[in-house]
Amino acid sequence: MVSSSERIEPRTLKGFRDYLPEVMMVREHLVEIARQVYRRYGFSPIDTPALEYLEILAGKGGEETDKQLYRFQDHGGRWVGLRFDLTVPLARFVAQHGPQLPVPFKRYHIGPVWRGENTQRGRYREFVQCDFDTIGTRSVASDIETIQVIDDLMRAIGFDRFIIRVNHRGILSGLLERLGLADRQIAVLRALDKLDKIGPEQVAAEMAQSAAASPGQVRQILALADMTGSNQAILTQAESWLSGSSVGLEAVARLREVLEGLRAAGVPEERVRVHLSLARGLDYYTGIVFETLLLDLPEIGSVCSGGRYDNLAGLYTSQDWPGVGGSLGLDRLLAAMEALGRLEKVATPAPVFVAYFDKDRLAEYVRLAARLREAGLGVELYPEPKKLSQQLKYADRRGFRLAVIAGSEEFAAGVCQLKDLRRQTQQTLLLEPDAHSLIETIRHILAEPAQPNPM
Amino acid sequence: MVSSSERIEPRTLKGFRDYLPEVMMVREHLVEIARQVYRRYGFSPIDTPALEYLEILAGKGGEETDKQLYRFQDHGGRWVGLRFDLTVPLARFVAQHGPQLPVPFKRYHIGPVWRGENTQRGRYREFVQCDFDTIGTRSVASDIETIQVIDDLMRAIGFDRFIIRVNHRGILSGLLERLGLADRQIAVLRALDKLDKIGPEQVAAEMAQSAAASPGQVRQILALADMTGSNQAILTQAESWLSGSSVGLEAVARLREVLEGLRAAGVPEERVRVHLSLARGLDYYTGIVFETLLLDLPEIGSVCSGGRYDNLAGLYTSQDWPGVGGSLGLDRLLAAMEALGRLEKVATPAPVFVAYFDKDRLAEYVRLAARLREAGLGVELYPEPKKLSQQLKYADRRGFRLAVIAGSEEFAAGVCQLKDLRRQTQQTLLLEPDAHSLIETIRHILAEPAQPNPM
Repeated sequence: MVSSSERIEPRTLKGFRDYLPEVMMVREHLVEIARQVYRRYGFSPIDTPALEYLEILAGKGGEETDKQLYRFQDHGGRWVGLRFDLTVPLARFVAQHGPQLPVPFKRYHIGPVWRGENTQRGRYREFVQCDFDTIGTRSVASDIETIQVIDDLMRAIGFDRFIIRVNHRGILSGLLERLGLADRQIAVLRALDKLDKIGPEQVAAEMAQSAAASPGQVRQILALADMTGSNQAILTQAESWLSGSSVGLEAVARLREVLEGLRAAGVPEERVRVHLSLARGLDYYTGIVFETLLLDLPEIGSVCSGGRYDNLAGLYTSQDWPGVGGSLGLDRLLAAMEALGRLEKVATPAPVFVAYFDKDRLAEYVRLAARLREAGLGVELYPEPKKLSQQLKYADRRGFRLAVIAGSEEFAAGVCQLKDLRRQTQQTLLLEPDAHSLIETIRHILAEPAQPNPM
Repeated sequence: MVSSSERIEPRTLKGFRDYLPEVMMVREHLVEIARQVYRRYGFSPIDTPALEYLEILAGKGGEETDKQLYRFQDHGGRWVGLRFDLTVPLARFVAQHGPQLPVPFKRYHIGPVWRGENTQRGRYREFVQCDFDTIGTRSVASDIETIQVIDDLMRAIGFDRFIIRVNHRGILSGLLERLGLADRQIAVLRALDKLDKIGPEQVAAEMAQSAAASPGQVRQILALADMTGSNQAILTQAESWLSGSSVGLEAVARLREVLEGLRAAGVPEERVRVHLSLARGLDYYTGIVFETLLLDLPEIGSVCSGGRYDNLAGLYTSQDWPGVGGSLGLDRLLAAMEALGRLEKVATPAPVFVAYFDKDRLAEYVRLAARLREAGLGVELYPEPKKLSQQLKYADRRGFRLAVIAGSEEFAAGVCQLKDLRRQTQQTLLLEPDAHSLIETIRHILAEPAQPNPM
């Protein structure tokens, strides 16, 4: 026995959290949908270690990420770190296993990453990323497919009211080139990326400060954000600004091809919006970039983002690995579903509850539950012969749909009671032979259409 | 550009590994089966952080585990550690969230754990555990169910030739009590547990050394391992040895109830074997213990083990949390499947390959692939209009079952070629209307029975 003074307070670290069953059920469901969609396009799963040599991770995600890196010396005195994203491990992975990989290499990777974030901003220090990428090709077909995957994924999750904003880094490069700001591109795009969060005035101030941009230059860059009209109209306007910049004009042409492909794929045109001020911070993007906003909760930010990069693994290999990919923000999506009241919580993974009513007949309850499971039904048998009212209270609270109840009288008569816990109705059914009529009745009730999909 | 001298060598840490797609596909499949089986019995998923306060983890898994613990100070100067199993986090979890949890609390937890093991023994420092436990009840019904789950799980994975060894710690306690070794139980059981690995002579030596057991005592303990015969015969023999030890006799009675329940559940009797020398090292087991051996590869050790414990969370709370559970050894099972030649590797998650043949018709290929996916088929579209022979070589190497081929002639005639890559046959099919006959033919071919299940 441990005395209360020796007891350790059960708690989780700041910025970390436990997932209780009802939330975890939804998480598993979302991950399963993502897997199915990724696979449907030919993406295969990979996994990489949580811990990497520190030199693989350090300096790869910018200054802030470096500060947030969990790092320490392992038992062998090696400096190691916990991965902070799934992109750096992917780069290391393709550099290491390149010759064994098919080209194109299409992979998905779903797993936790760790960042010592400031929790005051409501951020978590451990979260799951769901990435998919197509590596080893510059083809526009993969750009199109990446956005198709996102559209499919969002719809498979149950969302209909969302938009995918797209842009091409080359359009921004072309414009900055024409404005004489090509050498300060990173600073300008970092500032531009914050437009939604901090507004045009602060962006202008940051551009002036970090990129020494003139008021005229800032005005022209910010004009991008004010463009309205159809995708075609926006791209035609962009072309006129970019005349003479081959980088810019090629980017417009590429974006047109992407839009044409998405039309062919059946993605509704109003769902894909050219948004010329979109830069998506990360320095390594070189082609299309995109983000996904929920029309009913845009303020939560993008729930699925990504883009094309020229050279994924240049830090680890001389081989060229261009690619394009995206990342589903699982936690943000869950938070959005919760905020929108669209989380249908299910507390129990098995719909049928079997009460353990008559203490001396455990073997018969075990046999009955096993028989129902063999028929493919999810069944929980209550483990103790407590009062029926107590068992039914448990069943109700857990959210079981059906309860099977049999005591000595029922067993003697070869029957059981089937209680519909949602409808509060009850019927008597034969147990013999092989619980056939019970199984058919349960199947029938469970096959009833559920409430309309709330999303 | 990075010069070659600045490049970082792409490598993983010793004891850690990447999972390439063909292995990861099998891992995901096994995890999915485990999830389905656990859910079918009413177990719900939870997750806990990879990192815990060091005080939660340290001293909980014995001296060796303590040495292997990955520990460090985080950004806030807190001492933290990476979880080394899923049982200690479960204990902390129930202590912390107790009032919110249903009782019985049935959870499964699938996730990575970390131990700085000696890699010379072929051990990995990161591996996935797949645990399931029923907490908050002492009922024999949960003991029965735990073993039922394992039987179901093994069969769902495709194994038929395995045995589940069971014992009850009370039988060992009773015997040691009768032998006057009750005060040295832990040392005796630690030694006994190594019987399969190091043989009776070394076990005897260890018992003499660590528990000061006499040769006569050792002989009686080791006699347990030599017992043969039916479960009934073994238990009857045990009863005679244990006469007068209420702990021992109660344990025999309990084991009989478990066997009776498993019979009722339809678990074949020859698959469950009473094995009185089984102790399962961990100190916290107090009731039944079990392990699972593959008859074709017993030397790989148990692939699924566990047992009952009285007090899971005593270090963190005064509340009593008895329970019973098991853990599927995913990596060991995979290694066994590989050694037995039972890993059917599938390199591609999508069975249908669409060649991109005519450069100018990308939109048509995209449309066709989208149409097939809408019909529920997994389809990979090759992203570049390379030579057909090159594309088909890729398709063949990746293991696609079917390839859809259409060039300008086919599109003009409204047809495509469907090539069965396994049978090396080919047929011409109409593309219009809506690729209906193509879809039906693909479905028909994919629905053909696969090769007989190899396990």
